[in-house]
Amino acid sequence: MALIVQKYGGTSVGSVDRIQAVADRVIETVKQGHQVVVVVSAMSGETDRLLGLAKSISQSPTPRELDVLLSTGEQVTIALLSMCLSDKGQPAVSYTGGQVCIRTDNAHNKARILDIESVRVHKELEEGKVVVIAGFQGNDEAGNITTLGRGGSDTTAVAMAAALKADECRIYTDVDGVYTADPRIVEDAQRLPCITYEEMLEMASLGSKVLQIRSVEFARKYNVNLRVLSSFKEGPGTLITDEDEQMEAALISGIAHNKDEAKLTIVGVPDQPGIASQILGPIADANIEVDMIVQNVGMDNTTDFTFSVHRNDFEKAKSILENTAKSIGGKNVTGDNKIAKISVVGVGMRSHAGIASKMFKALAEEGINIQMISTSEIKVSVIVAEKYLELGVRVLHSAFGLENGALAEN
Amino acid sequence: MALIVQKYGGTSVGSVDRIQAVADRVIETVKQGHQVVVVVSAMSGETDRLLGLAKSISQSPTPRELDVLLSTGEQVTIALLSMCLSDKGQPAVSYTGGQVCIRTDNAHNKARILDIESVRVHKELEEGKVVVIAGFQGNDEAGNITTLGRGGSDTTAVAMAAALKADECRIYTDVDGVYTADPRIVEDAQRLPCITYEEMLEMASLGSKVLQIRSVEFARKYNVNLRVLSSFKEGPGTLITDEDEQMEAALISGIAHNKDEAKLTIVGVPDQPGIASQILGPIADANIEVDMIVQNVGMDNTTDFTFSVHRNDFEKAKSILENTAKSIGGKNVTGDNKIAKISVVGVGMRSHAGIASKMFKALAEEGINIQMISTSEIKVSVIVAEKYLELGVRVLHSAFGLENGALAEN
Repeated sequence: MALIVQKYGGTSVGSVDRIQAVADRVIETVKQGHQVVVVVSAMSGETDRLLGLAKSISQSPTPRELDVLLSTGEQVTIALLSMCLSDKGQPAVSYTGGQVCIRTDNAHNKARILDIESVRVHKELEEGKVVVIAGFQGNDEAGNITTLGRGGSDTTAVAMAAALKADECRIYTDVDGVYTADPRIVEDAQRLPCITYEEMLEMASLGSKVLQIRSVEFARKYNVNLRVLSSFKEGPGTLITDEDEQMEAALISGIAHNKDEAKLTIVGVPDQPGIASQILGPIADANIEVDMIVQNVGMDNTTDFTFSVHRNDFEKAKSILENTAKSIGGKNVTGDNKIAKISVVGVGMRSHAGIASKMFKALAEEGINIQMISTSEIKVSVIVAEKYLELGVRVLHSAFGLENGALAEN
Repeated sequence: MALIVQKYGGTSVGSVDRIQAVADRVIETVKQGHQVVVVVSAMSGETDRLLGLAKSISQSPTPRELDVLLSTGEQVTIALLSMCLSDKGQPAVSYTGGQVCIRTDNAHNKARILDIESVRVHKELEEGKVVVIAGFQGNDEAGNITTLGRGGSDTTAVAMAAALKADECRIYTDVDGVYTADPRIVEDAQRLPCITYEEMLEMASLGSKVLQIRSVEFARKYNVNLRVLSSFKEGPGTLITDEDEQMEAALISGIAHNKDEAKLTIVGVPDQPGIASQILGPIADANIEVDMIVQNVGMDNTTDFTFSVHRNDFEKAKSILENTAKSIGGKNVTGDNKIAKISVVGVGMRSHAGIASKMFKALAEEGINIQMISTSEIKVSVIVAEKYLELGVRVLHSAFGLENGALAEN
């Protein structure tokens, strides 16, 4: 007997019929001999309906009251799913975030989980009940309702699994796992049977939006076995777990991409200590997140400084940078928002030299110019012109032999 | 400075515009120098929408989960009204029943309030905030969400006013007060400026559905000044309060009526001790409530026994009674569901003889036959044929001079 946490998103519980289907899957898991805790989101469309009501009352709704409002969405789902389970003969009980003591800080609309009391849930499980918990919400110390922000239900599920010391946390989504590349771009992309937390974090931060980054971080921190599966078709999905537990580490797990970025360059700035913070300080003050940063070795006591930001922040960052250029004596500012980032990700590359050069060679052979390079322990990212995105992903997928399954050493 | 509890029902908060109007009224009361606690219902239609969802999941939804579901209705309203108040510059904070520690028993769907902690609300009021509380709901001792049943928001408001020792509890409805008779029947019916709890209880139980009986009982028990006003037009409404506080007690406050009843008679039953319980026992066992009971003095050792029930229970009660007649040797069973009850109500009648005879004389002069009579300390009720309902109410309204205002001794 295992303790399984299952999480179903808004689409999976978007109608009475789908709630019935979720109930059937839960009961199937119980019949396999497991204890089951279910975490659910609001029915799809419900959060937007509630947000619409709030917006019709106030242009900037009070954050505390917005949480009181939005948290009703999940509360409706837990009640309906519990009723449905009971109706099908499976004892079930629902809990809101506050009732199950999901304690958060008091940052309304984007709260972070601090603590979960698991006693009550364990007691219900021991009585043979399925426990249905509202995702996305908690209570702060004073008992105010808080929400974790969009995607917070994944985090609730992982935190719950950690608190309960569950054997596995299963996240049901509209994809059936994590792939070696986006299947819409690479026809023969392969589903990965397993992947490490670190790889998943890199994949997620690079635009593979299967899971919220926060939930993966949480899973890594508390060593929760996390599985991504499809709500709509059967299959083992992808297990996200510790490196040690993998049978055989792949050199490269997948090719991720991201076309939400834009790059900015300030040319001919004085090459002196502290110049980077003078350039990036005003950007950070404007709450603009910077991704890649490249500074070339300078000539004539000047240097060029390039960084990338989210495409939505491009114009704002450019105008800030133009002001900075004036004050620090830079020559001029250039920018480009028609770029794409392509990355090869894999824990195996830690111990292997030559990944980067293999990557650059493959791109060069197709005439794809590399504009920026950034590396971490388990990934190499390059910025290329946006028009090369699909070609670049396919070339790299093939160069690293991912179409033959990622587990083989290539 | 007074502490005022205001309660708005579903129609009063049924749209964004109406919520805006409620917020304006609340702010007006604050500007008059008062502290304000607001109790609200779910937006009209919302409870039925949620019930519909539940019914589409299960024919008999789990009572606990039904409460989890239905309580979201009021939670949406408190969030929206608090946002609206804040948006208009009035600091406000919302509380669910559980958050404000409205402790109930665990009778889901029809829970009773046991206790309210008022410390937190007082603290918010002292900080200059309006406190917006979800009606109709609470938490049981174990922290499960409970609801008080239909009309429970009135009870929440009164209980809150009692716990806070509020100066007045104002219930905003779609009528502008309690009248000497139904204005749809008696054209010159007068709004009563005040009325005692006991009179209101009699009026409510006799079909004047302005307030839930439970909330009036609660108000009497804790001596809460209760005022019924219109959500949609200005006016002082009707104050429901203790007898002592009234300037001058009216002999008769009003004429109430009820056409939801039906009467049943079992003829020629043996006139012996215990016969009444033999007749009414099976009726009570079937959860049928009995209102009036009349037993005549018997002849030839037999008697006739008549009682009234809700019209919806007429057929069921009749068939039970027919079985009883066989087993106890009654001659036969007759019934009539085309009856109406008309009552004169007033605390003043305690000290005045002659009310009943004046009533019977007025009806007789119009040729209205009285089928049954029942009296209490402050009311006299008669059952007449349904066709005489309007005529009877008008005749009595005029006989007791209520068109001239109820406060004068008549």
